[in-house]
Amino acid sequence: MNIEVCFTPQAYPLFHNPNSVVVVIDVLRATSAITTAFYNGVLKMIPVATVEEALEYKKNGFMVAAERNGEIVEGFDLGNSPFGYMNSKVKGKTIAITTTNGTQAIEAAKKAHKIIIASFLNLDAVIDHLKEDKKDVLFVCAGWKNKFNLEDTLLAGAVAEKLIFNCGFDTSCDSTLAAIDLYKLAKYDLVKYLANSSHRNRLAKLDLERDIKYCLTPNQCPVVPVMKGKFLVKG
Amino acid sequence: MNIEVCFTPQAYPLFHNPNSVVVVIDVLRATSAITTAFYNGVLKMIPVATVEEALEYKKNGFMVAAERNGEIVEGFDLGNSPFGYMNSKVKGKTIAITTTNGTQAIEAAKKAHKIIIASFLNLDAVIDHLKEDKKDVLFVCAGWKNKFNLEDTLLAGAVAEKLIFNCGFDTSCDSTLAAIDLYKLAKYDLVKYLANSSHRNRLAKLDLERDIKYCLTPNQCPVVPVMKGKFLVKG
Repeated sequence: MNIEVCFTPQAYPLFHNPNSVVVVIDVLRATSAITTAFYNGVLKMIPVATVEEALEYKKNGFMVAAERNGEIVEGFDLGNSPFGYMNSKVKGKTIAITTTNGTQAIEAAKKAHKIIIASFLNLDAVIDHLKEDKKDVLFVCAGWKNKFNLEDTLLAGAVAEKLIFNCGFDTSCDSTLAAIDLYKLAKYDLVKYLANSSHRNRLAKLDLERDIKYCLTPNQCPVVPVMKGKFLVKG
Repeated sequence: MNIEVCFTPQAYPLFHNPNSVVVVIDVLRATSAITTAFYNGVLKMIPVATVEEALEYKKNGFMVAAERNGEIVEGFDLGNSPFGYMNSKVKGKTIAITTTNGTQAIEAAKKAHKIIIASFLNLDAVIDHLKEDKKDVLFVCAGWKNKFNLEDTLLAGAVAEKLIFNCGFDTSCDSTLAAIDLYKLAKYDLVKYLANSSHRNRLAKLDLERDIKYCLTPNQCPVVPVMKGKFLVKG
């Protein structure tokens, strides 16, 4: 069982493997929001690539989340702040969602055998899920507009480290080795390690410190969202 | 003066900055071979993207180097082993060169304001050159077939660390922060750190341990090759 890490959606075609479970990561904040949504009782989510598609769902009566550049798109009720989903009004709902990077990563990997959603919030649940699947694993980091980012890489490293050292997985991929080494440097204080990172600073300007601390605190939402057709459902 | 690191030629368009000095890196082995060639008296080199172009130069009487997948392409005299250039017959010559990754990285960056060639062999000379230029710096790692690799990242980290901590450069780029942290982990024994890396193992199968050790030993060739038009010359 081989592990690879693809740092950006742009690079996905180079890594596509029909046997891999694809683990989509957008720690700040799309996959953290999605994990939180399912933990709070959302029934299904529909990831869409464009704001136009999201608008169509809105017209058809769906609850819809749309974020671009860290902010809720005008005319929508939800963005990708996890706190927006800690609300009884989402329970049992189907929510369409489009975000700057996270839903683009899901779109890039749509031909994968299986896609699951990972964040620090469901870290151990994701590890258990992959351990049971016993398949090759490909982490697809959302990054920021197709550039590498640290927080997604650290999560890939956290999962990969456990799978390799405890569960019989292997890697011959330099990006996996780098992700594991960076995670080892960061793991004792993720918030501090990421203090200088690009996206954390981008969000800090939007006054989202509370979101950042929440998204970097592991295992608060032990659920694994899984793609089934065009829907994300609880795995 | 801002620093960015682009991990693969594929991503170059996302990083293009008309004011940057582009530093092309292919530690194992194209930029190490080019650095060695100039240190051994080569007059000019002509990087070309395809074996077909290289053949044209050969037909026109040039000395030509061509490597694909770690080996010299049949019909050519030189590949990208630095030891091929430690030879009096290259002195004063103009050599066309095409390699799997390194010359592709040069090709990707051809619209850059300025391109220089870096390897561990000319580490301090590159740092001095960039310090004098006082421009934004963009490292373009050749990687392996557009996938991230460790050895190129480590060199970017080595140069970036010095420029930021000693020379007044700055970064707001996560790939630069990652490269610096990985270099800090690796710097006391690069050969050992890279023991598990993908390309090192690829080369080890071709029995190129001597090349690897040479390419990872800093400051053996204090020259900086610079692109001028279609030629690389001694900067």
